[in-house]
Amino acid sequence: MLDVIAFDADDTLWHTELYYRQAEQRYLAMLAACGVSTEDALAALHRLEIDNLVYFGYGIRGFILSMIEAAIQVSAGRVSTSDIQEMIELGRGMTGHEIRLLDGVRETLDSLTGRRLMLITKGDTLDQESKIRRSGLAGYFPLVEIVLDKTPEAYASVFARHSIDPTRFVMVGNSLRSDIAPVLALGGYAVHIPYPDSWAHESAADLPADRSRFFEISSMHQLGEVIAKIEAQITQAGPR
Amino acid sequence: MLDVIAFDADDTLWHTELYYRQAEQRYLAMLAACGVSTEDALAALHRLEIDNLVYFGYGIRGFILSMIEAAIQVSAGRVSTSDIQEMIELGRGMTGHEIRLLDGVRETLDSLTGRRLMLITKGDTLDQESKIRRSGLAGYFPLVEIVLDKTPEAYASVFARHSIDPTRFVMVGNSLRSDIAPVLALGGYAVHIPYPDSWAHESAADLPADRSRFFEISSMHQLGEVIAKIEAQITQAGPR
Repeated sequence: MLDVIAFDADDTLWHTELYYRQAEQRYLAMLAACGVSTEDALAALHRLEIDNLVYFGYGIRGFILSMIEAAIQVSAGRVSTSDIQEMIELGRGMTGHEIRLLDGVRETLDSLTGRRLMLITKGDTLDQESKIRRSGLAGYFPLVEIVLDKTPEAYASVFARHSIDPTRFVMVGNSLRSDIAPVLALGGYAVHIPYPDSWAHESAADLPADRSRFFEISSMHQLGEVIAKIEAQITQAGPR
Repeated sequence: MLDVIAFDADDTLWHTELYYRQAEQRYLAMLAACGVSTEDALAALHRLEIDNLVYFGYGIRGFILSMIEAAIQVSAGRVSTSDIQEMIELGRGMTGHEIRLLDGVRETLDSLTGRRLMLITKGDTLDQESKIRRSGLAGYFPLVEIVLDKTPEAYASVFARHSIDPTRFVMVGNSLRSDIAPVLALGGYAVHIPYPDSWAHESAADLPADRSRFFEISSMHQLGEVIAKIEAQITQAGPR
């Protein structure tokens, strides 16, 4: 049977990206008022988010700092200080946004009572821990790992830290690159639940040729069925 | 003998506060140029740092966001966007500042080879982990705990997590409130090394009446002597 069933958090258990996109819309409106095109404003923001990663990391605080910097640069300093004040207020709002669970999440977690569940999330510790508390789901997850990047090495570290056999481990998440491919590479099982209207660039080219441990479903409601399939596969494969 | 010798990091192992004060000096200069007094500018910054703690947490990113907000508010929007751009650059600089070890740190850590050493630090995970890596001291500390606040409960959690007997534990740090008082309250040993010209308000009123497990030294060079004294005390006290 499976040792651990692990879940990604952002856009797997609760909506996340849309709050960043809402803040981005306000930023674009402010810059349009300065005469800056959506295309230029977005390019500046995305470039600075990436360039600032090494300094400011992930999460809301780095995002707002990059947004302020992008606004100043792309408007050649014309953006108003009251707009910048509003960006900081947007940031405060983002740190407390309502956690909206995705469809089927709570029922599915309830159905997995008695299982050893783990949360494996990438990102800023302050943001992630706050969302776990605000989600009301903390009680389902005795094990929580917040990692810098979801590489095979990072997952291997998690397995070592918790004495997890990868061949008795399944990861559930919305990202092929972060949740699925690294786990398959280590011999684990992985269940992909794509996030509707995802803005992230996903590529099946990241997946290994052997797809026997890869499953794709459209909603958390179907996870129970897939867990049963995986455990049937494990049983058929025989003892370790 | 002692199970664990634990250290605070900021202003115990390496200089920290001075980098925040340097950035503050630039902020004050920028606001002076807008006609804002040092007193008003500092009051605004300190008030916003505290008010924003619940939203933006500790560390450089929250500090810079609060600095930008303070500048805008206390100058009634007159601060220039190029000054705000400079604040963001100051922030980037702070994330990579040279780690200057305090006097005697490396020699003392070398002298403790074979001991179980732990780092217990409060603050932002991104900042703290970066400083530990940049310090070159990571190899001395197999155990690292980054806590939200250094309360007795937080230390008790650390002891539980690592099966540490508080009566065989010593904490070394510069803050009576954060490093010394909570550990003494739990029955542990504590060594205070005040940071010269400390801006923090320290009060011996935080310490319990029984000072038998409290030691104060002026530099890390004296720690070895104190460890020997503590272990003599433990031996005299007899078996657990």
